Amino acid sequence: MPQYTPPVRDTRFILDRVIGLDRYAELSGFANASPDMVSAVLDEGGKFVAEVLFPLNQSGDQEGCTRHDDGSVTTPEGFKEAYRQFVESGWGTLSAPAEFGGQEMPHVVSTAFQEYMISANMAFAMYPGLTHGAIAALLAKGSQEQKEKYVPKMVSGEWGGTMNLTEPQCGTDLGLIKTKAEPQADGSYSISGTKIFISSGEHDLTDNIIHLVLAKTPGAPDSTKGISLFVVPKFLVNDDGSLGERNAVSCGSIEHKMGIHANSTCVLNYDGAKGWLVGEEMKGLAAMFIMMNAARLGVGLQGLGIAEVAYQNAVVYAADRRQGRALTGPKEPEEKADPLFVHPDVRRMLMEAKALTEGLRALCLWGGLQVDLAQEAQDEEARQLADDLVGLLTPVIKGYGTDIGYKVATDAQQVYGGHGYIAEWGMEQYVRDARIAMIYEGTNGVQAMDLVGRKLAQNGGRAVQAFFKVVTDEVAAAKEMAELKDFAERLEKALGDLQGATMWLASNGFQNPNHVGAGAYPYMNLMGTVALGLMWLRMAKAATEQLSQGAEDAKFLEAKQITARFFAERILPQSEGLRRQVESGSDAVMALDAEMFAAA
Amino acid sequence: MPQYTPPVRDTRFILDRVIGLDRYAELSGFANASPDMVSAVLDEGGKFVAEVLFPLNQSGDQEGCTRHDDGSVTTPEGFKEAYRQFVESGWGTLSAPAEFGGQEMPHVVSTAFQEYMISANMAFAMYPGLTHGAIAALLAKGSQEQKEKYVPKMVSGEWGGTMNLTEPQCGTDLGLIKTKAEPQADGSYSISGTKIFISSGEHDLTDNIIHLVLAKTPGAPDSTKGISLFVVPKFLVNDDGSLGERNAVSCGSIEHKMGIHANSTCVLNYDGAKGWLVGEEMKGLAAMFIMMNAARLGVGLQGLGIAEVAYQNAVVYAADRRQGRALTGPKEPEEKADPLFVHPDVRRMLMEAKALTEGLRALCLWGGLQVDLAQEAQDEEARQLADDLVGLLTPVIKGYGTDIGYKVATDAQQVYGGHGYIAEWGMEQYVRDARIAMIYEGTNGVQAMDLVGRKLAQNGGRAVQAFFKVVTDEVAAAKEMAELKDFAERLEKALGDLQGATMWLASNGFQNPNHVGAGAYPYMNLMGTVALGLMWLRMAKAATEQLSQGAEDAKFLEAKQITARFFAERILPQSEGLRRQVESGSDAVMALDAEMFAAA
Repeated sequence: MPQYTPPVRDTRFILDRVIGLDRYAELSGFANASPDMVSAVLDEGGKFVAEVLFPLNQSGDQEGCTRHDDGSVTTPEGFKEAYRQFVESGWGTLSAPAEFGGQEMPHVVSTAFQEYMISANMAFAMYPGLTHGAIAALLAKGSQEQKEKYVPKMVSGEWGGTMNLTEPQCGTDLGLIKTKAEPQADGSYSISGTKIFISSGEHDLTDNIIHLVLAKTPGAPDSTKGISLFVVPKFLVNDDGSLGERNAVSCGSIEHKMGIHANSTCVLNYDGAKGWLVGEEMKGLAAMFIMMNAARLGVGLQGLGIAEVAYQNAVVYAADRRQGRALTGPKEPEEKADPLFVHPDVRRMLMEAKALTEGLRALCLWGGLQVDLAQEAQDEEARQLADDLVGLLTPVIKGYGTDIGYKVATDAQQVYGGHGYIAEWGMEQYVRDARIAMIYEGTNGVQAMDLVGRKLAQNGGRAVQAFFKVVTDEVAAAKEMAELKDFAERLEKALGDLQGATMWLASNGFQNPNHVGAGAYPYMNLMGTVALGLMWLRMAKAATEQLSQGAEDAKFLEAKQITARFFAERILPQSEGLRRQVESGSDAVMALDAEMFAAA
Repeated sequence: MPQYTPPVRDTRFILDRVIGLDRYAELSGFANASPDMVSAVLDEGGKFVAEVLFPLNQSGDQEGCTRHDDGSVTTPEGFKEAYRQFVESGWGTLSAPAEFGGQEMPHVVSTAFQEYMISANMAFAMYPGLTHGAIAALLAKGSQEQKEKYVPKMVSGEWGGTMNLTEPQCGTDLGLIKTKAEPQADGSYSISGTKIFISSGEHDLTDNIIHLVLAKTPGAPDSTKGISLFVVPKFLVNDDGSLGERNAVSCGSIEHKMGIHANSTCVLNYDGAKGWLVGEEMKGLAAMFIMMNAARLGVGLQGLGIAEVAYQNAVVYAADRRQGRALTGPKEPEEKADPLFVHPDVRRMLMEAKALTEGLRALCLWGGLQVDLAQEAQDEEARQLADDLVGLLTPVIKGYGTDIGYKVATDAQQVYGGHGYIAEWGMEQYVRDARIAMIYEGTNGVQAMDLVGRKLAQNGGRAVQAFFKVVTDEVAAAKEMAELKDFAERLEKALGDLQGATMWLASNGFQNPNHVGAGAYPYMNLMGTVALGLMWLRMAKAATEQLSQGAEDAKFLEAKQITARFFAERILPQSEGLRRQVESGSDAVMALDAEMFAAA
């Protein structure tokens, strides 16, 4: 019973009027992003996901995937046909290189489409999503032969792809990997081991599945430095591209999970499966990080996609459901009760959801743009800046973004009252689905450590200083505009808290690295708050300028101004508490002996 | 695979050394709470729930309840036998009056037992939990005949009880109730209508179920002033106490819910069922509030119970699971990796869970004590104070307490990484079960409105002023003690924020009641933060004094001191951001027209 309308108007506002895609028209990577083409992607892509994928979201959750005795896995009813249409329409090829059959659209555009696909059906979206991660790794590290052999059919969607990192004893700490890769006389490797939590690991959507597998070669060191990456197809691929024999990789079981039931999460057993090294031996971690960085932005988008669809439905419910009266007196006295919309506490939840979701959309699209600019910008300095910024903010988009997804889904469910808890109404599925995004591709705590432990210090803090400069410059300019002055001053205050917390970590981290670890999570949230503040400054600025020019969609633009004010009054002030958490250090956090945790 | 150990040591610390139960030994209501009796309840009650109820928690969630074609409902395997043992051992009778077969223990003691029962099996605990609410209403408003007819078998647990408020069109706004009660010649009423979301509405655990039903008599006004309360037994009860004919109330369906699968949530159809008025006609709301207030404290306990069991398991997992190395260098170099415990961000989650859970336990037990003192304290002033304080803090215990339950369950699941998302490990059930507590018995937003809209203003603010005085006095005393000075000053700061926010609401609420509504939720969290701060001050004080006296359990007491410090450094400072949210008012919250919410 939930509904979904792709938020094309908001996407276009950000792409056209905040980012200004036309400013990049001269860059070669943007050649395929003509206004007509972008319209087609948003309108037609949105229509496709709303009409074909969204109707399968609830039924897919209820049915889930089924593993049969022969190890094969069936996706829920309708998925196979929907996937066939997805492949036929070419929706998986948007930003892949033309050389391998892609449409070579900028990432900023495919990001918008991916958001829609996730909102419509997150579990479905994960099948092509994982394939994209595998493509990225093959393109970056694979041999020309490997690329030619596997990538075109992965781009088209005829074949799927997976990422195989986790093992029973090994999650975040990839140094603990036990899967073995024994070199064979023919140049291939024999892969043996057990991988768990493999999303899209086995299913009936594609003719073949190309597994990318981390494993250790004989004598490799017992750490992340000993890891190599292998490509292990479910069916071996003959030289003419036809499928050969079934490889020795099989699905041992599928997991029963809290959510994303329609995506098969597999235990994969490799029993001497034939695989080939991707890139250099023992350089698997670097290759894996190429997949991971793309995947982390994609997971941040899951936070956005779920937040959007949950928010939309809460808005509809708040308008339809009548309960109680406005505190200021009946709004619709002819009815027995007013709609939920009149209640300030319902508004509070909806406004928070709107402020966080639209802010996160701007941040995700900005992140997609930086991926493009890091490759395509005209001068080295601009490419470097984009690469620095997206590297810095990838853990924030993933960690802060998926926390937003869960919070917004939970609040949207709350708007429904008791109905929110009932499966039929669809809201509890959004909470369950949103929850995984905080865990996989590195838990959000791992994201926070990536931010404070790696990204802050890289190149002498170049990236974070660049981010501060962007915010500082835009704040300074906005303070000159009467309509933006208040917002700019509040953002300046939050930026001051972020800078203070950054200084504190830099000064105290050497003395005790636990201070950095203990402050990581609030620091990530603090940077997320400032990053969303920057996005809202930009949106408020665009709205204000366009209103002064007599724009047609005045209501939409006024809503941007008001939501920016809400963000400034309700969300930005949290920066101070977050800073104080960071600066409280690790003494109390680390003081207990292990046995002192038990209250029992 | 989860485990559970009743936290008897912590309960005893609070009862014996923070509250000091022996100080109340002279009060008549405490006569049955001898140290031996309290020990028996905690030790034997804890053992019972851990051995009998806890093993059915996961299986009950997986199997759920089953409705048969004849409208009967079967609880999951094992529930019936466990319930039989529950009745036989008398665990449902703890704080019921002796006159009706109860043990007449103080509420503060039965509260402790109820926490354990919820931790062990929340869905099971709801069956006797609802019965207790129904007993409370009958005792307060029923006739002597009704009490004698129904209450003894409800106290023993042979019969169950339910609360029937919600209808499809009517949740929070009870004025919308449509269920009709037509007076009959014999003094009974004929009840017709549909009630939904009725917890424990139909099941196979008891011989009879006593439904308490809100309905409207002919000509009653179309508002909450027209509501009456009726007792409607599933089986009519003959004068000799034997069961008579089946009443015309039936279970039309059971809901498929996010969690608490083992509790039957029923649609109940009343088709001219025989019922009897409880109390006066059209005074049903007041009777209902007697059930609701007890129920709200009980739901707050659900937040505590789930937080405790989720936290316990996260601690075990953090000690067992090895992944990565301490930031300060390997802690256990002979192993391939250190336990999760070494990571500051894992500690952060565990310490937050510990600080919130133990603080909430102290607050819930304190709330139970106030219920006792409101009835039993020696002078009228003390009774009044206790009644004021528990009235004020009931919405805080329910709203803030269940938010804590969900947060702690979510963070405990997060500690498990990917395993947290897998049903088998049991952590995702705690999140799903915890979620309902934020919704039912009045959503947490409704609790916040009860706090700011009713409780603050009652009797000229007498209750909130009394609360401020308690905190102020204890802070002043603590500032004189070197070990408590820092904590006391930080709590004083948070109290200042709460007082400031209270003043702001009082000054601005008249001008615009939406300011009150828009600030309600952050205000509730702010009061919860201060209330938990008061509890931690008391626990830190008790620990410090006992350590200075050479107490045996030094490690346990030191953990209290450290956790209090953590609370002071990490949680109390959130008061300022909450105050700023309150004081930002309602302008931005209320400014959007309904159609301006849509981004699509």
